[in-house]
Amino acid sequence: MAEAREVTGLPIITEVMTVEAVPMVAEYADILQIGARNMQNYGLLQAVGKVTRPVMLKRGISGMIKELLMCAEYIVSGGNTQVMLCERGIRTYETATRNTFDLNAIPVLKETSHLPVIADPSHGTGLRELVPSMARAAVAAGADALIIEVHPDPDKAMSDGRQSLTLEEFTKLMVSLRRVAAAVDRFIGDAV
Amino acid sequence: MAEAREVTGLPIITEVMTVEAVPMVAEYADILQIGARNMQNYGLLQAVGKVTRPVMLKRGISGMIKELLMCAEYIVSGGNTQVMLCERGIRTYETATRNTFDLNAIPVLKETSHLPVIADPSHGTGLRELVPSMARAAVAAGADALIIEVHPDPDKAMSDGRQSLTLEEFTKLMVSLRRVAAAVDRFIGDAV
Amino acid sequence: MAEAREVTGLPIITEVMTVEAVPMVAEYADILQIGARNMQNYGLLQAVGKVTRPVMLKRGISGMIKELLMCAEYIVSGGNTQVMLCERGIRTYETATRNTFDLNAIPVLKETSHLPVIADPSHGTGLRELVPSMARAAVAAGADALIIEVHPDPDKAMSDGRQSLTLEEFTKLMVSLRRVAAAVDRFIGDAV
Amino acid sequence: MAEAREVTGLPIITEVMTVEAVPMVAEYADILQIGARNMQNYGLLQAVGKVTRPVMLKRGISGMIKELLMCAEYIVSGGNTQVMLCERGIRTYETATRNTFDLNAIPVLKETSHLPVIADPSHGTGLRELVPSMARAAVAAGADALIIEVHPDPDKAMSDGRQSLTLEEFTKLMVSLRRVAAAVDRFIGDAV
Repeated sequence: MAEAREVTGLPIITEVMTVEAVPMVAEYADILQIGARNMQNYGLLQAVGKVTRPVMLKRGISGMIKELLMCAEYIVSGGNTQVMLCERGIRTYETATRNTFDLNAIPVLKETSHLPVIADPSHGTGLRELVPSMARAAVAAGADALIIEVHPDPDKAMSDGRQSLTLEEFTKLMVSLRRVAAAVDRFIGDAV
Repeated sequence: MAEAREVTGLPIITEVMTVEAVPMVAEYADILQIGARNMQNYGLLQAVGKVTRPVMLKRGISGMIKELLMCAEYIVSGGNTQVMLCERGIRTYETATRNTFDLNAIPVLKETSHLPVIADPSHGTGLRELVPSMARAAVAAGADALIIEVHPDPDKAMSDGRQSLTLEEFTKLMVSLRRVAAAVDRFIGDAV
Repeated sequence: MAEAREVTGLPIITEVMTVEAVPMVAEYADILQIGARNMQNYGLLQAVGKVTRPVMLKRGISGMIKELLMCAEYIVSGGNTQVMLCERGIRTYETATRNTFDLNAIPVLKETSHLPVIADPSHGTGLRELVPSMARAAVAAGADALIIEVHPDPDKAMSDGRQSLTLEEFTKLMVSLRRVAAAVDRFIGDAV
Repeated sequence: MAEAREVTGLPIITEVMTVEAVPMVAEYADILQIGARNMQNYGLLQAVGKVTRPVMLKRGISGMIKELLMCAEYIVSGGNTQVMLCERGIRTYETATRNTFDLNAIPVLKETSHLPVIADPSHGTGLRELVPSMARAAVAAGADALIIEVHPDPDKAMSDGRQSLTLEEFTKLMVSLRRVAAAVDRFIGDAV
């Protein structure tokens, strides 16, 4: 992880799935991720509420916006106020995309909470070719950060290859994201 | 209508709800709208397929993207190829917003069809305070046009006041939309 | 139609899709059906509100129970109080069945309205093999009537064959439905 | 628990929410429940796959039927073949009821699996007055067992009082359930 951090200049986000794993993950990762399936895993929320690392809480696949906020409260009430909320798409009847990316959630969360809001266009669409458009849309909607899946050879990825960008696609996307960010008076730093 | 067209410089869009009304609406309006409730009203689709005016077809409240495309085929097969597709939000379990604005539909429709795609952030959110963010997001996602509800005094509007912008809010929004459009290499013309 | 009525002893239900067709359908059919796609076709609802035939109003594919009741009001307010409400399945994320058959709607409608409630297990499931179980469930839930698709050779049906029973399956189903009806103190008459 | 078992003659079902709690719960309870929020908690599924007690696996609030079956596989593959599947309602756009009770799942699960299927009309409706109708519907649909919330004074219940029956309502319901069960050639034993 230290190496990945040094090479990319990016923070390391690691999903934590059990209470027992929390101390070890908190030792090495920069940000602890609570995945969509664990949004309402209250024991786990309480456990990450006691560490000093930032936590990224993903909205459940059928989580309501108010439930996401209440789950964040579980973490904050444990003493850890560094919580980021992540919109990653919800389950609806539409099958053209893997999930329905609910960008409405971004301004709603920004209005009702002071927490940073992250968007995940990879899971939000499930389809690589839609990721650039929807990443731009998320920035325009007010997202504070994005989490985007990248793989040197997506078709050979062990999971989620269908929604992963190549390094070239990612580099190209970053250029256009900087332009959209500037158009809404936001700034994307140098590390990325 | 002629007056409204002259004052605003904007095209007049009028919803048509019955087959009988088609000829009269086609005589005066610049664009005929098929509302969400009539997306699958095949008799009506065939009727607007025979006029020479452009048609804006709104996605049904639980319409799948492929159904929207098939309904457009009904119009086009009648001879009217000037069809615009409109994403206006779908019904899901989320209640924080009036609808779930499915912006994924924009790049999906652009990829699978040559038809222009319009976004309706007013119905897509149902809440005035979310309209600017989501209008910007729709432009960033690749929308070719927006339809936005405006009212001189929204709280006194006979319908949809909760999602209508004031004239001042609209003017301010247009400034920021031009910036976002430019950031994705699009251009918003002078009329508006 | 007269022949079908005589042979089966069953009422003839015919879908009416346009205002213009209402008088002719009302002349020949015993019951006018408003299909799911037209639940909120207010012009059509008003038109069938003025005839003297009973109307069966089907719930829209994403219709809320309260919307179904309000649409029934459109018909009743026109003077036609003979309205039957039909649960026929709603659109959800589940794809194992054609629709999600919302049997909860039956007792909810019976509690909030005096109108008869009809269940459509054919559309509610979309799969022939599920129809008998769900027809029985609908009767047990309190349905006042069922509408079941039957075809002498379902695999050759022009539409909905996948959800149609053969005549033999239907005859066998009726025997078990009479038993379930009796168990909830209801009675299925002789005609069928 | 031993006392409750003796007084009611009913098996004791206890929800287990963490891997650590599995051994203790397995020592005292007759059946281990995996709640809807933990349907895809794979660590927990593996843990209950190693005990000798029966497990009742509840469908997630937005779980697909095939996902429920795959989660059951996690348990069975650990060596514990005594798995019961529970339909308890799914999340949809309908708000008249707490959940949409997807009774279609009962015959689908019975067709695609040999596992017993349990229905939970309390969570499936969320409303006490709907529980009797939907309990009868579940039996008619083919459910092998029901789980029904009962409370001596529901309005004072610490949770789920709105969906709990009184003892009198429960006793009355059992009489009618025996009749429906008999009508579909099933039998409800003496203990209850």
